Amino acid sequence: MYVLLVYDIKEKRVGKMLKLCRRYLNWIQNSVFEGEITEVKLKELLAKAADFLDTEEDSVLIFKSRSQQWLEKQVLGQERNRLDTFL
Amino acid sequence: MYVLLVYDIKEKRVGKMLKLCRRYLNWIQNSVFEGEITEVKLKELLAKAADFLDTEEDSVLIFKSRSQQWLEKQVLGQERNRLDTFL
Repeated sequence: MYVLLVYDIKEKRVGKMLKLCRRYLNWIQNSVFEGEITEVKLKELLAKAADFLDTEEDSVLIFKSRSQQWLEKQVLGQERNRLDTFL
Repeated sequence: MYVLLVYDIKEKRVGKMLKLCRRYLNWIQNSVFEGEITEVKLKELLAKAADFLDTEEDSVLIFKSRSQQWLEKQVLGQERNRLDTFL
């Protein structure tokens, strides 16, 4: 499935989250990732994130779509780097 | 249509962008908005944003889906405020 992940977390944990997300998804904007991922891999990512995130302070939103074709993307201004996953 | 809007813009323009987006969409996380909006209204929003954004520095991503039902939302940690649009 296609996933869009957006986080808003305290600065001290951002580096760890960025590194984790990059192992599973493609970075498209500050704190925004997208990519094809399986349900199992997504669970793994979220379990790892839950290990160090503070759920009282941090927020991670995940939007899942069965296929990327249901989502049309439009960009105003800069599209940030698109990195391939490292897996 | 259902729209997800995520921006990454320089701090000095954030207040203006936040205020603008709140007139059209619902705020769900720091720099993330969602909502039902027509193509015409979205164009209006983006035209207004283009008036003050610096397209060399700023980035606005818009994900459009014909219907919200194609997107399943999952939250880890806090779900931020959900404000109704002021229109």
